[in-house]
Amino acid sequence: MPIPPEIFLLPPGSDATLQQQIQQIVAEAIVSGRCAAGEKVPSSRRLAAHLAVSRITITVAYNELVANEYLVARDRSGYFVADTAPRRPRFDDPVRHARPGVAWADRLTRPVRQRDDILRPPNWMDYRFPFIYGQSDPELFDHANWRACALRAVGRRDFDTLAQDRYQSDDPMLVEFILRHILPRRGIHAQPDQILITMGGQNALWMIAQLLLSDGEVAIVENPCFPGLRRIFDQMGHVGRSVDVDAGGLPPERIPEDAQLVFTTPSHHAPTNVTMPIDRRIEMLERAARDDFLIVEDDYEFEMSFLAPPSPALKSLDQDGRVIYVGSFSKSIFPGLRLGYVVGDRLMIEEMRKLRSVVLRHPPSHIQRSTAYFLSLGHYDAQVARLARHYGQRRAIMESCIRVHGLTPVGGESHGGSSFWMRAPEGVDTTRLALDLRADSVLIEPGAAFFAHRAPDRSHYRIAYSSIPANRIQDGMARLARAMERAVGGQGGSAMPND
Amino acid sequence: MPIPPEIFLLPPGSDATLQQQIQQIVAEAIVSGRCAAGEKVPSSRRLAAHLAVSRITITVAYNELVANEYLVARDRSGYFVADTAPRRPRFDDPVRHARPGVAWADRLTRPVRQRDDILRPPNWMDYRFPFIYGQSDPELFDHANWRACALRAVGRRDFDTLAQDRYQSDDPMLVEFILRHILPRRGIHAQPDQILITMGGQNALWMIAQLLLSDGEVAIVENPCFPGLRRIFDQMGHVGRSVDVDAGGLPPERIPEDAQLVFTTPSHHAPTNVTMPIDRRIEMLERAARDDFLIVEDDYEFEMSFLAPPSPALKSLDQDGRVIYVGSFSKSIFPGLRLGYVVGDRLMIEEMRKLRSVVLRHPPSHIQRSTAYFLSLGHYDAQVARLARHYGQRRAIMESCIRVHGLTPVGGESHGGSSFWMRAPEGVDTTRLALDLRADSVLIEPGAAFFAHRAPDRSHYRIAYSSIPANRIQDGMARLARAMERAVGGQGGSAMPND
Repeated sequence: MPIPPEIFLLPPGSDATLQQQIQQIVAEAIVSGRCAAGEKVPSSRRLAAHLAVSRITITVAYNELVANEYLVARDRSGYFVADTAPRRPRFDDPVRHARPGVAWADRLTRPVRQRDDILRPPNWMDYRFPFIYGQSDPELFDHANWRACALRAVGRRDFDTLAQDRYQSDDPMLVEFILRHILPRRGIHAQPDQILITMGGQNALWMIAQLLLSDGEVAIVENPCFPGLRRIFDQMGHVGRSVDVDAGGLPPERIPEDAQLVFTTPSHHAPTNVTMPIDRRIEMLERAARDDFLIVEDDYEFEMSFLAPPSPALKSLDQDGRVIYVGSFSKSIFPGLRLGYVVGDRLMIEEMRKLRSVVLRHPPSHIQRSTAYFLSLGHYDAQVARLARHYGQRRAIMESCIRVHGLTPVGGESHGGSSFWMRAPEGVDTTRLALDLRADSVLIEPGAAFFAHRAPDRSHYRIAYSSIPANRIQDGMARLARAMERAVGGQGGSAMPND
Repeated sequence: MPIPPEIFLLPPGSDATLQQQIQQIVAEAIVSGRCAAGEKVPSSRRLAAHLAVSRITITVAYNELVANEYLVARDRSGYFVADTAPRRPRFDDPVRHARPGVAWADRLTRPVRQRDDILRPPNWMDYRFPFIYGQSDPELFDHANWRACALRAVGRRDFDTLAQDRYQSDDPMLVEFILRHILPRRGIHAQPDQILITMGGQNALWMIAQLLLSDGEVAIVENPCFPGLRRIFDQMGHVGRSVDVDAGGLPPERIPEDAQLVFTTPSHHAPTNVTMPIDRRIEMLERAARDDFLIVEDDYEFEMSFLAPPSPALKSLDQDGRVIYVGSFSKSIFPGLRLGYVVGDRLMIEEMRKLRSVVLRHPPSHIQRSTAYFLSLGHYDAQVARLARHYGQRRAIMESCIRVHGLTPVGGESHGGSSFWMRAPEGVDTTRLALDLRADSVLIEPGAAFFAHRAPDRSHYRIAYSSIPANRIQDGMARLARAMERAVGGQGGSAMPND
């Protein structure tokens, strides 16, 4: 593509001649790397018109730049950036502030606290044994049909309506499918004004917290817990109270009487994968009614219940509308999609829609429609079935490796999921172990990020099977087991994270 | 698509027989409209497996439902929902709460204040003369090339990386194009760690406000002003100070000395379209340095400067890094896209990236990549040129109609834009006028929503030409002029908005 004339602007208030100014701005664009070698600069006619100077001024400036080896002239086709042009490494020119800068650190009055995140290198796909969680496996995703659906959503028929600003309502096709086909599987019957489409589960949880958490509100989070939820509390400057889970998930009797809002993951507790038994669910709802607290049910991977039929959602047992349900397509479709939903009281949904319109207006309409097609044409069901089949197989291999190597899974009864929650032997620091394992092309997730700060814990770790091919599991688990033995023997590596 | 067995769940703790329970849940699904007439219910084999009951139980229940005309049996192909099945209107069954509900109004501790929005019916496309702002014109958009770019972004080569969770970084291809080709046109030279991709301009402004506005901070907004910005202040419980603009936009000398953060739209003031003269820009920056305030420059439609070359952004004159620049593709590509960007100090951008990851993780990767292709293949430039050509033509017709009918544009010198800011004659209520005009298939935007509450104003209105075909402008403007005459004569309609 030729360089557009619009990127050249004359500096205001310069003392130089016009020709010098033009030489200067073109040279600067080349040196800084904004114009690359071989690119065609604007014709003298176009640049002259754009800058409102005479064409001869441009030509003289260009010829000067040719003499200085910034440009080369090619007969009849114009001027091009020379291969020999001087240049600084691209993007490496620091912004020059003529005056002392702004004290940014003092101005950022609401900093987001830095918190341990799950340690996962951005290039995790380059590792041979990635036991990491929450990323999709390209081999298992029905790419061809997703592509067909995306294509249909940008087709002429849909495009014009979807291109508009539509913050007042969500895609009716997507909403209807969720109401008619997805929620009923969780035992939930809702109406269109009780659901809001969100930018994934994280966005759903954040909006709920924004609307319901005020200063002094007593909010309960599970311990251990999904780190993204704790970061929401941090960002709001709110301190949640952590309640330790046991082999049945969050114990209702440990929820303090003054609780007002409880965040929980009954289907598959994150990260232990425990499924909350039905009796406990009923007890949880009874407590909620007695103590008048609200419950946020994060049902982030209910589709991955392949060992037993999924138990109905907590929301399905909810008699007085105090459960706010959060669903997501990140695990069943793919996380880069950024689509989820909230089901709750219509007054709350209405407020949430207003909040959403202030924060981001609405989730992109073409993404909503692509997903609606993927769901309604049956590809989602096929996808979930395929994942369940493969995850079941991988899980069986993982279980056998865990047994063979004498590793220690913890938690309680689980209906599937896509990971195991594990405990390392006494004295092993799993954060250190995880970093050491990278040299062996193995990725595991150290558990520290899941725990409340008041209870730092470096003995747990998570190993997921959603992104690793079945035929690599045995080798990877053997490497993990060997590293664990070395760590127990005190021979662990020396790398330490910056914290 | 046949009805999946998963939508049927046995109610916990029921006293009925299994067969009765099955009849009940299938009948309920039909009556409520979740299963539609003609849809195939699961085979007895599949439903039996799913519910873990005997197949004969299912068959007996189905036969009972056939007898009751909920289902019809078709030889060899199974059972289908009968056309004659009883049903309540779809989604019309209220959720039955057995116990008194939650006092939601009391629980929503951070309600988003309801504010006048610009009055625009969601079905604006059904009106023949839509003088409304900010929606794209399907006739002018290069749909074929957008579709090709979207297609490429969901191609195998891109798909796998883009499907992942990528909150740590934005699409490098999009970032590079903005840095190399878009920002230089505004005179801005930035590096990759000084830019963040956002969910459109609204999301950018919201994040800036979140990071920089603390209690007691003196923040300045222009009056009149884009209502979306005031809603951000409302949502945060912050009262911005409004400063009246004049024929040159925001007057620096009216900015109070204790100002700490100033939101402004120098290229095309929203909604008056005035372009701030260069002297005033320089003075603004000098004041900012003297009084140590930061400036948020919302450059929301710089591409629409077709009457004169766009003046360089305020940010390009910024000597000490106190201007935070906001760009958006909503006007030049389409608003449903939801993509924009912020350019600013790297420390601020880093904080903003953290905030974004808490609130929504990241803008969907496929949208970022589709846009990157659209930009880098030159379609964006062609699109902007096409819009400028058509808008220029439409604007000329509008100007002539305004003159012919003696309507009153207000504001100052403008370099283009896509609308006119107008004042109605004394005594005309433009909110009422806009509602009356709907009956004549004309949409205009009453000005009330743009003004601070302390200065209610119903005499202004906006008429845009971005969505109305050139050949309808004359007729539409004639209808507007007639309605205005009637309103001056006191014969306006009686419809009033609910406020």
